Amino acid sequence: MNEMTVSNLECGLDDDTLHEECGVFGILGHDDATTLIALGLHALQHRGQEAAGIVSFDGRQFHTEKHMGLVGDHYTDPVTLAKLPGYIGIGHTRYSTTGEVALRNVQPLFAELEEGGIALAHNGNFTNGLTLRRQIIATGAICQSTSDTEVVLHLIARSRHASTADRFIDAIRQMEGGYAMIAMTRTKLIAARDPIGIRPLVMGDLNGKPIFCSETCALDIIGAKFVRDVKNGEVVICELQPDGSVTIDSRMPARPAPERPCLFEYVYFARPDSVVAGRSVYVARKNMGINLANEAPCEGDVVVPVPDGGTPAALGYAQASGIPFEYGIIRNHYVGRTFIEPTQQIRAFGVKLKHSANRAMIEGKRVILVDDSIVRGTTSLKIIQMIRDAGAKEVHIRVASPMIYHPDFYGIDTPDRDKLLANQYVDETAMAKYIGADSLAFLSIDGLYRAVGGEPRNADRPQFTDHYFTGEYPTRLLDKEGEKVGRKESMLAANG
Amino acid sequence: MNEMTVSNLECGLDDDTLHEECGVFGILGHDDATTLIALGLHALQHRGQEAAGIVSFDGRQFHTEKHMGLVGDHYTDPVTLAKLPGYIGIGHTRYSTTGEVALRNVQPLFAELEEGGIALAHNGNFTNGLTLRRQIIATGAICQSTSDTEVVLHLIARSRHASTADRFIDAIRQMEGGYAMIAMTRTKLIAARDPIGIRPLVMGDLNGKPIFCSETCALDIIGAKFVRDVKNGEVVICELQPDGSVTIDSRMPARPAPERPCLFEYVYFARPDSVVAGRSVYVARKNMGINLANEAPCEGDVVVPVPDGGTPAALGYAQASGIPFEYGIIRNHYVGRTFIEPTQQIRAFGVKLKHSANRAMIEGKRVILVDDSIVRGTTSLKIIQMIRDAGAKEVHIRVASPMIYHPDFYGIDTPDRDKLLANQYVDETAMAKYIGADSLAFLSIDGLYRAVGGEPRNADRPQFTDHYFTGEYPTRLLDKEGEKVGRKESMLAANG
Amino acid sequence: MNEMTVSNLECGLDDDTLHEECGVFGILGHDDATTLIALGLHALQHRGQEAAGIVSFDGRQFHTEKHMGLVGDHYTDPVTLAKLPGYIGIGHTRYSTTGEVALRNVQPLFAELEEGGIALAHNGNFTNGLTLRRQIIATGAICQSTSDTEVVLHLIARSRHASTADRFIDAIRQMEGGYAMIAMTRTKLIAARDPIGIRPLVMGDLNGKPIFCSETCALDIIGAKFVRDVKNGEVVICELQPDGSVTIDSRMPARPAPERPCLFEYVYFARPDSVVAGRSVYVARKNMGINLANEAPCEGDVVVPVPDGGTPAALGYAQASGIPFEYGIIRNHYVGRTFIEPTQQIRAFGVKLKHSANRAMIEGKRVILVDDSIVRGTTSLKIIQMIRDAGAKEVHIRVASPMIYHPDFYGIDTPDRDKLLANQYVDETAMAKYIGADSLAFLSIDGLYRAVGGEPRNADRPQFTDHYFTGEYPTRLLDKEGEKVGRKESMLAANG
Amino acid sequence: MNEMTVSNLECGLDDDTLHEECGVFGILGHDDATTLIALGLHALQHRGQEAAGIVSFDGRQFHTEKHMGLVGDHYTDPVTLAKLPGYIGIGHTRYSTTGEVALRNVQPLFAELEEGGIALAHNGNFTNGLTLRRQIIATGAICQSTSDTEVVLHLIARSRHASTADRFIDAIRQMEGGYAMIAMTRTKLIAARDPIGIRPLVMGDLNGKPIFCSETCALDIIGAKFVRDVKNGEVVICELQPDGSVTIDSRMPARPAPERPCLFEYVYFARPDSVVAGRSVYVARKNMGINLANEAPCEGDVVVPVPDGGTPAALGYAQASGIPFEYGIIRNHYVGRTFIEPTQQIRAFGVKLKHSANRAMIEGKRVILVDDSIVRGTTSLKIIQMIRDAGAKEVHIRVASPMIYHPDFYGIDTPDRDKLLANQYVDETAMAKYIGADSLAFLSIDGLYRAVGGEPRNADRPQFTDHYFTGEYPTRLLDKEGEKVGRKESMLAANG
Repeated sequence: MNEMTVSNLECGLDDDTLHEECGVFGILGHDDATTLIALGLHALQHRGQEAAGIVSFDGRQFHTEKHMGLVGDHYTDPVTLAKLPGYIGIGHTRYSTTGEVALRNVQPLFAELEEGGIALAHNGNFTNGLTLRRQIIATGAICQSTSDTEVVLHLIARSRHASTADRFIDAIRQMEGGYAMIAMTRTKLIAARDPIGIRPLVMGDLNGKPIFCSETCALDIIGAKFVRDVKNGEVVICELQPDGSVTIDSRMPARPAPERPCLFEYVYFARPDSVVAGRSVYVARKNMGINLANEAPCEGDVVVPVPDGGTPAALGYAQASGIPFEYGIIRNHYVGRTFIEPTQQIRAFGVKLKHSANRAMIEGKRVILVDDSIVRGTTSLKIIQMIRDAGAKEVHIRVASPMIYHPDFYGIDTPDRDKLLANQYVDETAMAKYIGADSLAFLSIDGLYRAVGGEPRNADRPQFTDHYFTGEYPTRLLDKEGEKVGRKESMLAANG
Repeated sequence: MNEMTVSNLECGLDDDTLHEECGVFGILGHDDATTLIALGLHALQHRGQEAAGIVSFDGRQFHTEKHMGLVGDHYTDPVTLAKLPGYIGIGHTRYSTTGEVALRNVQPLFAELEEGGIALAHNGNFTNGLTLRRQIIATGAICQSTSDTEVVLHLIARSRHASTADRFIDAIRQMEGGYAMIAMTRTKLIAARDPIGIRPLVMGDLNGKPIFCSETCALDIIGAKFVRDVKNGEVVICELQPDGSVTIDSRMPARPAPERPCLFEYVYFARPDSVVAGRSVYVARKNMGINLANEAPCEGDVVVPVPDGGTPAALGYAQASGIPFEYGIIRNHYVGRTFIEPTQQIRAFGVKLKHSANRAMIEGKRVILVDDSIVRGTTSLKIIQMIRDAGAKEVHIRVASPMIYHPDFYGIDTPDRDKLLANQYVDETAMAKYIGADSLAFLSIDGLYRAVGGEPRNADRPQFTDHYFTGEYPTRLLDKEGEKVGRKESMLAANG
Repeated sequence: MNEMTVSNLECGLDDDTLHEECGVFGILGHDDATTLIALGLHALQHRGQEAAGIVSFDGRQFHTEKHMGLVGDHYTDPVTLAKLPGYIGIGHTRYSTTGEVALRNVQPLFAELEEGGIALAHNGNFTNGLTLRRQIIATGAICQSTSDTEVVLHLIARSRHASTADRFIDAIRQMEGGYAMIAMTRTKLIAARDPIGIRPLVMGDLNGKPIFCSETCALDIIGAKFVRDVKNGEVVICELQPDGSVTIDSRMPARPAPERPCLFEYVYFARPDSVVAGRSVYVARKNMGINLANEAPCEGDVVVPVPDGGTPAALGYAQASGIPFEYGIIRNHYVGRTFIEPTQQIRAFGVKLKHSANRAMIEGKRVILVDDSIVRGTTSLKIIQMIRDAGAKEVHIRVASPMIYHPDFYGIDTPDRDKLLANQYVDETAMAKYIGADSLAFLSIDGLYRAVGGEPRNADRPQFTDHYFTGEYPTRLLDKEGEKVGRKESMLAANG
Repeated sequence: MNEMTVSNLECGLDDDTLHEECGVFGILGHDDATTLIALGLHALQHRGQEAAGIVSFDGRQFHTEKHMGLVGDHYTDPVTLAKLPGYIGIGHTRYSTTGEVALRNVQPLFAELEEGGIALAHNGNFTNGLTLRRQIIATGAICQSTSDTEVVLHLIARSRHASTADRFIDAIRQMEGGYAMIAMTRTKLIAARDPIGIRPLVMGDLNGKPIFCSETCALDIIGAKFVRDVKNGEVVICELQPDGSVTIDSRMPARPAPERPCLFEYVYFARPDSVVAGRSVYVARKNMGINLANEAPCEGDVVVPVPDGGTPAALGYAQASGIPFEYGIIRNHYVGRTFIEPTQQIRAFGVKLKHSANRAMIEGKRVILVDDSIVRGTTSLKIIQMIRDAGAKEVHIRVASPMIYHPDFYGIDTPDRDKLLANQYVDETAMAKYIGADSLAFLSIDGLYRAVGGEPRNADRPQFTDHYFTGEYPTRLLDKEGEKVGRKESMLAANG
């Protein structure tokens, strides 16, 4: 799955198609907080390449740095790091959209409240963010960003509660959707996950001091221990005490509900070495390939992964089918994911910039391509053409997830419904013809459920968030229902 | 007067010594609004060299650009100008402080209100800005900048009035101090001046379309006609009508009071070719020199201006005294005013970078230096030394304004009280000794009043704002009285 | 092999340890020459990440752009590409050294000769470059760069031959070492390869127009056909004729000698999808793994490649041994190769930035790591520690090339002799202990020869260049012998 | 004279109209050489605003920095200065041309000769530079820049003399034209001035250590003493001795000839506080105004200088005529001289960006404008229109130098002959009509000679270089005679 995010480059909360997939990281009680945050964000770079920001507090002042580009482009510079002293801090990395996206939208966001400053970093999307935004603007609030995260800041500022933690919980109670959030004050690090745990958030420990981050790979990079997942609906409040110790308080402001993690974290988003909701992403992906080999066997000479997303599933497919696994496609790592490909100039050159056929493994062979997912199919079409140009006798494609029919509203940017391949052709045969494959097959929804969780889908109480495949959204969609109201003309386009 | 702004480089509203001297410009109804604004700001560059910003609206969207540096550094770039389409816009240029001052403080500020966006550009300072800021934060507002201008935006957002113009007036009624402000919405250009007209603001006309700006020189540069001063306490609301015409509505929300323009605009700030409150600045300065020649005659061979501020007064002094006017000091124009001298490295080289003695006119002569004002005296000391080094037989200094004893709170950045030369020495003789002059004399307050307005000072109802000389502040100083409250630790230091 | 280039960051031809591994690309007769060159250089990015330059000629003028950084950082910008019009051009990408390396050293180099301009791009190193440089300076030449490539330009300029092609050949005859060079004049594209073909250079064809480049992967990216290798010792002169056709002329200025390609191109440098000297690099690497499995079998549960260099060999090892191939190490692709890691700050974080253990595939297992080569061993040490920390029961390391004992002088930057692991420890057991492995084994020199060329090493007439393993240098080393002369103090350090 | 340099923006030695007016500065024996050079160049900024470069030597290595832009833009940065350690150094500031002018043309130029490095900074132009360049290229030299200064480096490198000083003199003997040059080696600072002293060069002393620079104002800024002019045709060789002392050796390689300084240094180029060839520039300019008042009296109410060039002459005119001197035109110092106005965008706004009318001194008055010179007349036309728009009753213009008919070839960039106002109209009346003046008069050539030197022009042996007025060139023009040969197509356009 390479192009899930290519289509919607408009920004602004009013635009119902803008949703960011992001990574968050927070730490409390370490003298070198910023360096650890920078490393953590680097490990989460796959969750967002557009921009990265860090806020720290050094006992006297809050400090912030926000930069467009990769974490390694800016936060490896000693001069930049020196501007972020402190023993507490949070960081955020966000996904690439267009140049329109100004620095003012880059997180963490900061607000100075009566009782002190608060900073916020957020992965996910609020399904009632626009509705709330309109309400608070109507009562005299000024929104500086177009990010829905700012709504949370305003709700915190307006809360009648005394303590920041209570204000935060007061605000969180009003939010709907999927979110993993980390907040910080002068002494507190607060983590919150949405009521059904759509977005991931884990808790770690480094020398007795707490860390929160999107995935376990961000703990591994700094040698921190994994403690546990933040529970769905939980708010964890860590506070630095005068004696240097840290207290940890868990609250459950939302009604208890079964956890339903987002399946796409397993299919594509999370790093393979991460453990999401207790399950190895790598193992889940290999299982998808194994199940796919059993559901959709294929005669062929080589199993070739579509890099990098399809690699573990292809290995599973090869091991289950006994057909040799070979690198038939070589990826140029100087480009990165499809995400970071901003200029039209380069886009015209298309897939070639990123992939090239390894002719020695393709020529004269029946090739079974394994990909993680297909969104619009345009990338598949180009890759299959490249494989044929390299002399393949046959090209079959096997997809390690079901067909995608429906948009996401919980932090994944999806193209318009009618751009999705599954909505454009009547069946696999028609799709295969469009993309130029000799055959095409997708993993079933039960096959995916079993690969990830071991059990088939429970139709009455699905164990995972899976609306992109099934159309069953796990929450109400308040903004969506009110979207006819339209976009305000006065939205500021901040170029500077 | 060269060093009035050198001392206080701290920022933050909490710091009672931060006050910016700025320039503002707005235009409604011209297709090429941005280019005209850029030119206007260029003409107002002497009012602020740190940063400049422009907001425009093109019928569909607001656009904004903010850049550190001179107007000509950025707004001559066609790429930048192309990002600012529109037929209405406002611009702001601000005075140099330190690197701490992030772009988020650069004006115009923008807010999206319920009924649409509003942008604000402000020259001056609110004497109750900090007090109001604390009040609105206490009731749940989030402040993004440390600028007191943001307080006005919040008051507008919170007003219960329906129209933006009424909300603006509602907000303005709560503000105290000296200010010249220009606001814009999608169809309106609004100008406001403080109740006693401390800060200047004029109205112009270009092909039937209104312009507001700090000084008339910004009209001249684009060939616009001068219409009139915005009156003290007046709010002028210009609105673009559907037929392309513009209506102009004048309101007087504040109680009528006599105008008291700031004397320092005449002494130093305004450009000599500007007409401030109906009086030519150049003529006023020449008059100061003429009056000074009569009040403080001096035997000498040449009258030498301390460039550039002292030049018109020196010409007046020479004409009145009959002593030849000569360029005994050459200024290096590649540096600019004292204001733009940010690095410590250069400051160490001191006056030499900006001025050099023209030995041919100095050597063996009795030199009468004429300067516009003396603040701390450190510049005078260096210049007199330079003149002596060039072989002057005697060096006398004549200052075309009275001694400065008191800080300003209306938009002029002044050093601490005890740094002012007038507060450090008992009389002119002691001061002359400190700066190394053979004699020193200041223009009297009456001499200054007569030079600018034709009449001596009316002690009961002073015709001008003159507290820096007299200690008589024209308004109450609410923040000043409450300043013991101190600075909050949570203030964000935005480096990025 | 990850750290071969970390040690010697000094520049200057005088320093015998500076040798660059680079990529070159040239094309004649295409209107969009520059875009094709940019794409070709992008495909050759793995050969040098420090800087890239392009020269083009548009029938009227030569144009040049040189930039520090990756090809994609600059040559995707339409503004930059528009500055390089032309139907003929050459490009160069070079390996990362330090900031000392100024733009003046970035290739292609250009000189204006009497009969017109000439540009030159070079991969390799001259073993008599310094000696020649001293000679020509002694006779009145002025050297602008510290690159040995400039020596060739001077020899061309000083040649008594009339035509540029003859002058080029005249110059080439005087050079010793390993090189692949592309030159261009207003109408000619000239390619040359050293007498024994140490460095690779291939010829391609796009719509009947010739292309020269370092590897076939640069042909694939633009859909060009592979024609043949430039022969060792050959100079190919392509000339654009007035009718638009291109003539191709092959010359053999050097005495015929058997080809001896550099083994390290197969072991590490070339891209796996490239075909070097008629042999698939990917197949050669898989063969290395297969031979290694036979030479050095090991009991284990998983075969884990050290990414990315060790991956094909690991796959070969797994297929030959029947032990499952698994991704036990995940690479963070946002860093790139070890080469581009300039700051000390990041280096301190070490391997973690680039690799992380995939605990699910490691914990409780006997892990067989397969790497392409070991230079100093410091990277192996860190990786093995990481694998152990992830819970491996045993860690064995198998290296798909022999031990490295000797420095290179043909374009590969190697650390000092005593920094090489093979020179520090007496045998594999001692080395294994140092790097923390349970066992360590290297591929034999014959195993490597058979993997690449099918035959064992012919000790009398070795088929490949292999001095780093064997100490048998394929040419004399003139500069090396005269190195006691030392470095001149007058060398210019160009910072700007 | 404001537009003398606007027309010819082409670069390349082949173009006979490219000639740079530059400033040079060198110092030997000071630990803080670079800072002193930066200050000296800052004082010489009026001689060239395009770019500035500095070379230093610290006993171990040469260091160089070259930057486009003003001296103060780069050489005030401690980081930049720290890159230029040393006790000997030279600097160069050059005049603005186009973006085509790459950094490789920015001086000082550097070459590494057999006996060590040499750096060169040059103000002026060689009238046989192109001819020599062709000769040395024909014999195998490689030219990296398009600057004629590089020719000198090649001649030095090729000289058969042993010592660098002898080589330098050998090279200088072959050069024709007008030049002031400073060279440096590891221990020597060498200054040379052309045989008739067209371009200025002075020697100063700071604590017993020698300085050379274009004008005395560069000595004043650092408090150095003026020692004497470098004599026409002289080469001064200063050498640092092992004991820290400096020896100074004067040589006269050229035949003795009477000095003929360039009149335009007095009319426009030099700073008014400089003393050129023993004469105060300020006094000379005032004298021009006095003589002009006597030669071309005018009835009027105010004498208004065209800033800044016309100011001293206007003061002289006012004092001689008894008509009041007033600032009727205000200059915006944020633009600088006409020279630094690179974008077409700004040029369209024309004179207004730089000047504005001071209406209070213009309206209803008979205005006598005094300018230093008129080249094409386009600026005069705009200024007169501006004065009329401000309400002047009459506008007369008086020019403090004769009409310009002929191009310069000694370092002043002049427009094509037919663009010169004097060549387009038959007499002053026609010119006055074109530029819109009520009357126009120029200073006579004798008036100018007397203003500068006290004596009228000696037609047999003119005391000054004055060909732009008279057509009598003081040297032969070798390149000019051979210019039909044309420009080579292969010239490199270096954009990067």
